[in-house]
Amino acid sequence: MKKMQQIKKIQKCIEEIPGAVPLFSRIPGVVKELVDACNRHQCFDHIGSAPIPTHEAVVDIIHRARRILFPGYFSQASLSPANLEYYLGQETTQLFEDLAGQITLAVQHECFQTQKSCTHCQDQGLEKAMAVIEALPAISRMLALDIKAALDGDPAARGDDEVIFSYPGLLAISVYRFAHELFKQDIPVIPRIMTEYAHSLTGIDIHPGAEIGREFFIDHGTGVVIGETTVIGDRVRIYQGVTLGALSLPRDAGRRMRNTKRHPTIEDDVIIYANSTILGGDTVIGARSVIGGNIWITESVPPDTRVILKKPELIYSDKGRKG
Amino acid sequence: MKKMQQIKKIQKCIEEIPGAVPLFSRIPGVVKELVDACNRHQCFDHIGSAPIPTHEAVVDIIHRARRILFPGYFSQASLSPANLEYYLGQETTQLFEDLAGQITLAVQHECFQTQKSCTHCQDQGLEKAMAVIEALPAISRMLALDIKAALDGDPAARGDDEVIFSYPGLLAISVYRFAHELFKQDIPVIPRIMTEYAHSLTGIDIHPGAEIGREFFIDHGTGVVIGETTVIGDRVRIYQGVTLGALSLPRDAGRRMRNTKRHPTIEDDVIIYANSTILGGDTVIGARSVIGGNIWITESVPPDTRVILKKPELIYSDKGRKG
Amino acid sequence: MKKMQQIKKIQKCIEEIPGAVPLFSRIPGVVKELVDACNRHQCFDHIGSAPIPTHEAVVDIIHRARRILFPGYFSQASLSPANLEYYLGQETTQLFEDLAGQITLAVQHECFQTQKSCTHCQDQGLEKAMAVIEALPAISRMLALDIKAALDGDPAARGDDEVIFSYPGLLAISVYRFAHELFKQDIPVIPRIMTEYAHSLTGIDIHPGAEIGREFFIDHGTGVVIGETTVIGDRVRIYQGVTLGALSLPRDAGRRMRNTKRHPTIEDDVIIYANSTILGGDTVIGARSVIGGNIWITESVPPDTRVILKKPELIYSDKGRKG
Repeated sequence: MKKMQQIKKIQKCIEEIPGAVPLFSRIPGVVKELVDACNRHQCFDHIGSAPIPTHEAVVDIIHRARRILFPGYFSQASLSPANLEYYLGQETTQLFEDLAGQITLAVQHECFQTQKSCTHCQDQGLEKAMAVIEALPAISRMLALDIKAALDGDPAARGDDEVIFSYPGLLAISVYRFAHELFKQDIPVIPRIMTEYAHSLTGIDIHPGAEIGREFFIDHGTGVVIGETTVIGDRVRIYQGVTLGALSLPRDAGRRMRNTKRHPTIEDDVIIYANSTILGGDTVIGARSVIGGNIWITESVPPDTRVILKKPELIYSDKGRKG
Repeated sequence: MKKMQQIKKIQKCIEEIPGAVPLFSRIPGVVKELVDACNRHQCFDHIGSAPIPTHEAVVDIIHRARRILFPGYFSQASLSPANLEYYLGQETTQLFEDLAGQITLAVQHECFQTQKSCTHCQDQGLEKAMAVIEALPAISRMLALDIKAALDGDPAARGDDEVIFSYPGLLAISVYRFAHELFKQDIPVIPRIMTEYAHSLTGIDIHPGAEIGREFFIDHGTGVVIGETTVIGDRVRIYQGVTLGALSLPRDAGRRMRNTKRHPTIEDDVIIYANSTILGGDTVIGARSVIGGNIWITESVPPDTRVILKKPELIYSDKGRKG
Repeated sequence: MKKMQQIKKIQKCIEEIPGAVPLFSRIPGVVKELVDACNRHQCFDHIGSAPIPTHEAVVDIIHRARRILFPGYFSQASLSPANLEYYLGQETTQLFEDLAGQITLAVQHECFQTQKSCTHCQDQGLEKAMAVIEALPAISRMLALDIKAALDGDPAARGDDEVIFSYPGLLAISVYRFAHELFKQDIPVIPRIMTEYAHSLTGIDIHPGAEIGREFFIDHGTGVVIGETTVIGDRVRIYQGVTLGALSLPRDAGRRMRNTKRHPTIEDDVIIYANSTILGGDTVIGARSVIGGNIWITESVPPDTRVILKKPELIYSDKGRKG
């Protein structure tokens, strides 16, 4: 017998067990308490207002965008020069419709929270979606340069296919470049769902608001954090565990520091090795500088500088003694 | 032609390729070796005993719990004040049944390993499932405070929706708070499957046995480890890469140190910045203290203390020379 | 009304909105630009050539391999000693066919890029797949030892089931051990898709080319990086955030350093605690040595040595003053 059937059978049995009946009678009390909490606004719910974007729909949009940006790599259809235009046309039209639908929901939802009605939400959804669609060719060109950067920078890379199929850095950057276009259109909620989806797959957390130049390469990537107001130039390369973050935040930072530049600026051709942390909105890493691994920097570094940690003192002891 | 069809066709062809026939004849030897290993107990298998919880069923339970704890955010159904009670009633009843089924399997499985028969497993499954269900309203209240903490602490947060939809910290904490209720009921295997599911999505590894107070906020979160016997007070905030772990473990730690307090205590209102590590069961970080980033602490810190790393010596060199 | 229906309805409406018509007319321009870029080889596409392995098919293969390597844990079927051989026989045959299909695609694709035709690709696919199948019993024995190592090393481990169901380290090692067999057969693209799939689930990034001995245990694991030319002995244990990586790479490292030993050698019985980094192809950590947490090592360490960081100077200040 299949396990699933066994499990179903067990669950069916529950309702016939003598002990189960008094237990079931305890559920309504729990439900009432949950409902009351929502009625008293002590829970976070999304009830009775306009529908909101769904995680699933946004993830679908990301995958469709990838199929357009890397034709033939992630699609079931076999592509040939003859059918490429037809394929891209169909996918792009569908992407526009899906985007317009989700963006409308996001805009509408925000609108309802403030003024309870919405006259231009659908127009805005359409306009913003089209602006994103029109950015696709530029994104495609940027990603081609990002792939080149991976091939140049990683001795373990065996070819374009391997980078496109399996490099988490490229996945995170692809999603970021797409989400950043939505962010520029001031679309609520969706850009962050997109980059957090990439974060969940890669461990690379790029805020959609960051500004990142050409030929960007992240190797390995787990633990990378790139904050909202970070600015990164061209041909920058970073490794796993690098944080480009904010200086220590006061307890009420949420309100006080919104919309200030809190994250660093990394100029062209900089390399930052694994697990280094660079903090602060006024911190600038000058062009062509190299930041060694495991370094904590809160002040600017001039161009053409190499920064390494003074060799930290290690204590070596024979394992007989306790070190 | 669709790629999948092509692939299917290739696979079908395999059986007709001349070279394939002698190859197929080598499979039985491999299978025999695999079977023999299991028969000699040299493999880990799960054969012939009671069915065990499945990863899929446990993940389903987590998603149902989230739909109850954040009504309207993750469900397909449109909710209104009129249908909320009906919706929560149905979902909660189903959650109870699913939980009771999986918990019964987990309890039964453990029971069979020691005594080969099980008289009270189903009753235990029901009782323990109901205890978890009855904790839902309290979990819901805790999560509302956790969301508030995220909005207070993160200047990049644009509203409740963004936090609920996309913050990995909230996802990890939600799953932890739910799994912790199962852990308190001494349910085997399932709580850890739950928190490891969250770990796989977020990079945040919270053991279900940890005890965590109100208004807990984890920002970014990748690389966070919170060990089994950690105790965390109210209004604590931690950043990516923070480990609350055990001091170095001897080789046979598995047996010798089970059930001892091995992980630190973090009192109320503490902030711990990115990539800091706090180790040891006797280590207490006193209330309102602030631990800077990149710090390694194995001793207690008094209340109201700020701890930062003495500015490590960095070596700056012109990039012409090799640093 | 179901949300999905609402969303569908919104999307349907889009085509009827007056403002939408002029917007739709802007899509062909975007599509033309995307097509032109591909025609001028300014995009990365996969058009008109042989079909390539798909991510989905490779992930299916991983899951089938896990069902064979841990019989009864991840399968729907209930197994008994009576049906075990039948079950393993069927699964192993299917795994062989799936592997042969995907490997043929990978080999063919690489072949086409250089010589436009392929005479032995299918034979190679079959032979290489069979070599992997014949390695299954040895992988199974290795994994049994890896599970033992987890139980020995982790005081929080409550039993085999918990380790097999939920330990990210075991998942990453299982996928690595399987992918490594493909890597040894010099199969393009697929081994890396496999280990990057595990990386996305666990935050543990093991290159399929690394060589890893018996009884390997990774605890927690997020942020672990094990580079392509790393060699690891028996009974080694490592913790979250450990990098076994390459020394700083020149900008054109991709070309210049391929196929050189760039990553360290870790001898038998070594323990490396959380967030330590060991770099360089000539770096050898001698047998039975213990490397403390948060350490940066670029030189060899003799056997039987304990290495810890000299207690870094911390600055403690009263929180009234700014630290």
